[in-house]
Amino acid sequence: MISLQVDPSVIASGVNYVWILVVSFLIFFMQPGFALLEAGQVRAKNVGNVLMKNMTDWALGVLVYFIVGAGVATIIGGLTSPGGFSAAAAFSYIGDSGSWIDWLFGAVFAMTAATIVSGAVAERMDFRAYVVFAGIMTGIIYPVVQGLTWSGGLLAGSGYLGAILGVGYLDFAGATVVHMCGGVAGLVAAKMVGPRKGRFDANGDSQPIPGHSMLLAVLGTLILAFGWYGFNVGTQATVLAVTESGGLEFMGAALGRVALVTTLGMGAGAVAAVIVSAQYQGKPDPLWMANGLLAGLVAVTGAVPHVTWWGGLILGALGGAIVLPAFRFTVDTLKIDDVCGVFAVHGVAGAVGTALIPVFAVGGFSATQLVMQVAGVGVIALWTIVASAVVLFATSAVFNLRVSEAEELEGLDIGEHGVSVYPEFVGESSPDRALGTPTATDGGSEVRTDGGVEAEHTSDSFDGGDSK
Amino acid sequence: MISLQVDPSVIASGVNYVWILVVSFLIFFMQPGFALLEAGQVRAKNVGNVLMKNMTDWALGVLVYFIVGAGVATIIGGLTSPGGFSAAAAFSYIGDSGSWIDWLFGAVFAMTAATIVSGAVAERMDFRAYVVFAGIMTGIIYPVVQGLTWSGGLLAGSGYLGAILGVGYLDFAGATVVHMCGGVAGLVAAKMVGPRKGRFDANGDSQPIPGHSMLLAVLGTLILAFGWYGFNVGTQATVLAVTESGGLEFMGAALGRVALVTTLGMGAGAVAAVIVSAQYQGKPDPLWMANGLLAGLVAVTGAVPHVTWWGGLILGALGGAIVLPAFRFTVDTLKIDDVCGVFAVHGVAGAVGTALIPVFAVGGFSATQLVMQVAGVGVIALWTIVASAVVLFATSAVFNLRVSEAEELEGLDIGEHGVSVYPEFVGESSPDRALGTPTATDGGSEVRTDGGVEAEHTSDSFDGGDSK
Amino acid sequence: MISLQVDPSVIASGVNYVWILVVSFLIFFMQPGFALLEAGQVRAKNVGNVLMKNMTDWALGVLVYFIVGAGVATIIGGLTSPGGFSAAAAFSYIGDSGSWIDWLFGAVFAMTAATIVSGAVAERMDFRAYVVFAGIMTGIIYPVVQGLTWSGGLLAGSGYLGAILGVGYLDFAGATVVHMCGGVAGLVAAKMVGPRKGRFDANGDSQPIPGHSMLLAVLGTLILAFGWYGFNVGTQATVLAVTESGGLEFMGAALGRVALVTTLGMGAGAVAAVIVSAQYQGKPDPLWMANGLLAGLVAVTGAVPHVTWWGGLILGALGGAIVLPAFRFTVDTLKIDDVCGVFAVHGVAGAVGTALIPVFAVGGFSATQLVMQVAGVGVIALWTIVASAVVLFATSAVFNLRVSEAEELEGLDIGEHGVSVYPEFVGESSPDRALGTPTATDGGSEVRTDGGVEAEHTSDSFDGGDSK
Repeated sequence: MISLQVDPSVIASGVNYVWILVVSFLIFFMQPGFALLEAGQVRAKNVGNVLMKNMTDWALGVLVYFIVGAGVATIIGGLTSPGGFSAAAAFSYIGDSGSWIDWLFGAVFAMTAATIVSGAVAERMDFRAYVVFAGIMTGIIYPVVQGLTWSGGLLAGSGYLGAILGVGYLDFAGATVVHMCGGVAGLVAAKMVGPRKGRFDANGDSQPIPGHSMLLAVLGTLILAFGWYGFNVGTQATVLAVTESGGLEFMGAALGRVALVTTLGMGAGAVAAVIVSAQYQGKPDPLWMANGLLAGLVAVTGAVPHVTWWGGLILGALGGAIVLPAFRFTVDTLKIDDVCGVFAVHGVAGAVGTALIPVFAVGGFSATQLVMQVAGVGVIALWTIVASAVVLFATSAVFNLRVSEAEELEGLDIGEHGVSVYPEFVGESSPDRALGTPTATDGGSEVRTDGGVEAEHTSDSFDGGDSK
Repeated sequence: MISLQVDPSVIASGVNYVWILVVSFLIFFMQPGFALLEAGQVRAKNVGNVLMKNMTDWALGVLVYFIVGAGVATIIGGLTSPGGFSAAAAFSYIGDSGSWIDWLFGAVFAMTAATIVSGAVAERMDFRAYVVFAGIMTGIIYPVVQGLTWSGGLLAGSGYLGAILGVGYLDFAGATVVHMCGGVAGLVAAKMVGPRKGRFDANGDSQPIPGHSMLLAVLGTLILAFGWYGFNVGTQATVLAVTESGGLEFMGAALGRVALVTTLGMGAGAVAAVIVSAQYQGKPDPLWMANGLLAGLVAVTGAVPHVTWWGGLILGALGGAIVLPAFRFTVDTLKIDDVCGVFAVHGVAGAVGTALIPVFAVGGFSATQLVMQVAGVGVIALWTIVASAVVLFATSAVFNLRVSEAEELEGLDIGEHGVSVYPEFVGESSPDRALGTPTATDGGSEVRTDGGVEAEHTSDSFDGGDSK
Repeated sequence: MISLQVDPSVIASGVNYVWILVVSFLIFFMQPGFALLEAGQVRAKNVGNVLMKNMTDWALGVLVYFIVGAGVATIIGGLTSPGGFSAAAAFSYIGDSGSWIDWLFGAVFAMTAATIVSGAVAERMDFRAYVVFAGIMTGIIYPVVQGLTWSGGLLAGSGYLGAILGVGYLDFAGATVVHMCGGVAGLVAAKMVGPRKGRFDANGDSQPIPGHSMLLAVLGTLILAFGWYGFNVGTQATVLAVTESGGLEFMGAALGRVALVTTLGMGAGAVAAVIVSAQYQGKPDPLWMANGLLAGLVAVTGAVPHVTWWGGLILGALGGAIVLPAFRFTVDTLKIDDVCGVFAVHGVAGAVGTALIPVFAVGGFSATQLVMQVAGVGVIALWTIVASAVVLFATSAVFNLRVSEAEELEGLDIGEHGVSVYPEFVGESSPDRALGTPTATDGGSEVRTDGGVEAEHTSDSFDGGDSK
């Protein structure tokens, strides 16, 4: 035993960064969660396309967010706050290995926002158009939101609006910064791409198009919940804090609150959604329970350190309870074909849960804070709507936003990628059922029976290009 | 560098609670593991119901365990030990954010016990009856077991029985407290709900009812093994211990032992089970290997810090070797239709592995300890049997414990939830094969071909209620 | 607050070993990743066999690596370096609980090498022969490679070759030690077992045999990427280092570099592969994107702490870009039926990425280092080829290396294990399509329609042996 001559901040860094690395990995693991959640909710003929879009979000997104996105966030933070900014400083992380763990921690949040969009536009969006949009989402649209909030911009306590109101916008782990941004961008994209064929009948009434595997959707949900512990609890990134006197403080109560509120929020969201679904549909529905669990998580994501445990429980229940009505509103009133309900799950639950933080605040209600919360939700939603619409409009000048009608019927897996995901399994394809025109020769059936034969049409799983 | 003026216990808390949070998340991830393990072992027509039950365990369970269960455990601990108890103190955690990480760590164990039950009663138990039982499992049945052991009650060194024998019951991570409790409750429930139609023929001989996806069962097994590292190694929650002199000690040897014995136990269990299955069935069977891996894990879960490495290897092999015979005994002798074999995997392996700890103890054999181990297993099993039976009997006065015969044939997904999990895939349903009465018009086929049309019968995946 | 009298190395151990345990669990989780990646790329009739082989790798492997393998590595390290060795010391870990966390950390790398092989020989290798090979892989073949490198042998700075060249071989997390070793062993095994029936036509041209679920392959890929963060970043096992003066240093920049280069490498690999696949096949292919993501990870696995961020990006892109051409070379030129392309993904990408480390080194180019890198790749490849060939040749004297033609047609699940993985789902089996001889009475079809009836042929999922 020796007398210790150590900077306590070194110990704090060691503990805190082990934590940050592990939660970053957990948040990355939300990528397969989203992939499964979305894949399960589309027809078998479009599964490969969904997987491709989800992998592209991540793979392309990290490159763009490293070269562009993270710097843009800092610049926007400087532009919308009195401090100003330096472009060189904003991009200095690129050469600073000491900041790269923090970059990764930021990147996994950015990629979560991006990947939400693919669930809204599944089964008909052109792949090239999607790639462009995903790149701009991770390079500009999300980074601007990050800049306005977490990077000290407009809505932060240090930003122009925060300075006026005297309070900063509260969104702890990104209920609106990440989830609502993704959910609203998805809504806009789903609107601009247009509904899937058969989603609305001649009278404009919606017709169900069942996904091919509720099991995958539920599995994706539970993987997301696992990753969400990293997302929410990990955002309490300081486990050991260095005190003013140079000592260390364990942030156990703060960590405990975010862990508990996350848990109660997801439980209450799932229970509330299943009750609502049983009322609405007559029977409790597993997929609505899963969506309620997710909506409960979204609803508390911004609130976890700020609200009482029972406040978190109520917010989670609220998020879960409104997910089905919000989805029906999207479909039946807005007439938007948001395939996986990302606006209901990520958009509405994020907005409501974050706006209501002051109502359940540990420190008591503050009207000023409520004003800031509503303003913040509005600013983020407005930016996301406008930016998404402009980007998609511009993209549509280069590529069609959606695939051809023939390709949509045949399935995007064949049309966009030349593959069949389940060559031994796929039975009767559902589009014809949805359209009320069953035929024996639809695209989906051909995939099943001829997958291995019409080799010019369908490559095999690993071996594309074998045959000429 | 400054001279450090820090309470070492703050450093220990920082390190230990990062560890505890991460392992809690891993243990939570056992929830999808159980969901897949069980879903794979039922027919496609009942998958949605299995998923629903597993999500309900967790979502409802955490609410009940926060409001009721964790306090009940403390009260039972006080009631069955000389110290007495205070109800107010027992529930004081509800308002104490400093204790909420510990609550979550306890909750993920409780939910594991609860979720085991659903595998035994799959494919025929009424959903409402299940919800009631799951709530009482997490609110009372498991918390009492926790109280008798980990919360210092009857079987602990400080409890009435422990004081008499002079030793406490050893069950480190819950081989009996969690797994045997769940496995025995499942056995009782499976008995009271009765076997699935076709499981036993007119002569009372068992007939196989194949699950729909061995892949999902194996995937669930491997996810469980991943989570189990959190379960077992994480129960060694103290990484840095504060010594009497106020210094710190690294518990590397203790962590190493639990990590190694967990690894060898699962390896030996899997190898033993595959050898036994090859002897018994003529060929090595993947699902038995998976169940042996799990039984090996269960067998060492109580023993990991207490036994030698070769003792752990033997206990794991024993757990794996007896899982098939124990399952056949359950089915052929007890005539109980335990669908996923939870009694063999979690009940028998947990009891045997925990009872035999003294035989392989690092510190040498102790007859007194063996008496305590056998007594403890007996007490926990007896309580679980009686409590489960009483609760189910009372529940049966309100709800039927099982669905109607027609609903069972059609599948619980349609009957209980109005959904079809795989609308594009499901081919010939198996109940008719099992019953020997193949028909072209069985429920399962109708689901497949009419899923999107008979909308009053089957909602679509996300869009229930679209059609009137 | 008290003045601290603590050995800083105790604090470092606490932080570092929490990290090491967590990343070991993540690396273990690559086991289901590989299982799914491989299962998705085989036909439904062989899925159970793939799962069985993957479970066997792990379950048998950990026993062998504890009793034999880890000690062999140390002995080889001593034999091929001036220091010499003591067999007793080499196996002293078996009785030393203080070293068991380190053993587990080593074991999860060993099991990764072993499990790669099963992907190459899928769909036709005899199960008993595979078990023998897997045991020797974890007991000797991989441990020798470990001994030559990480255990201080031939290629290390302290080894005979390292001493001559004055530099040690660089392979940080095992791009060649683990991945190339597995990929090359797989190639040799695939060659010696011979191609699947129908893989090459009468003219010797390759014919595609599509896997049954691209979704599972992609899911496995993303699980692998999750585990890979543990693999690569966790190999930077020292989070807090004890300095010469007895203080502590936080290794944040080192951790940041491995985390960033891992992330950019996988992103660039996926993007590059999708571009190449689109050029080669006309459309961007999800499975090639997945394989490119993996190849990008493999390519940077040895390089992560040594190269610049843009060097890592280039290495990842290179790994991804060459995966398809390397696979086509394997099939079309070498005429080897490497089912999952493990040589292209793990072998070629590992060799290229590791050999080129000096070209992108943070510290600048070193010709001597390049010589050592090329020599090291050559030594490891040569050992693996010779050892694998000898072991398989010896094994072939006892067992057939491959199953009978009839069993291959029927599927290994029935033939080797007596199970049907998807009894309700499997439709037309693909071998007939591949062979161009469709029949109504092939093995696969019988499994589907008669699974529950011909009980002497197919056991049910959990209940084998029910019927006589």
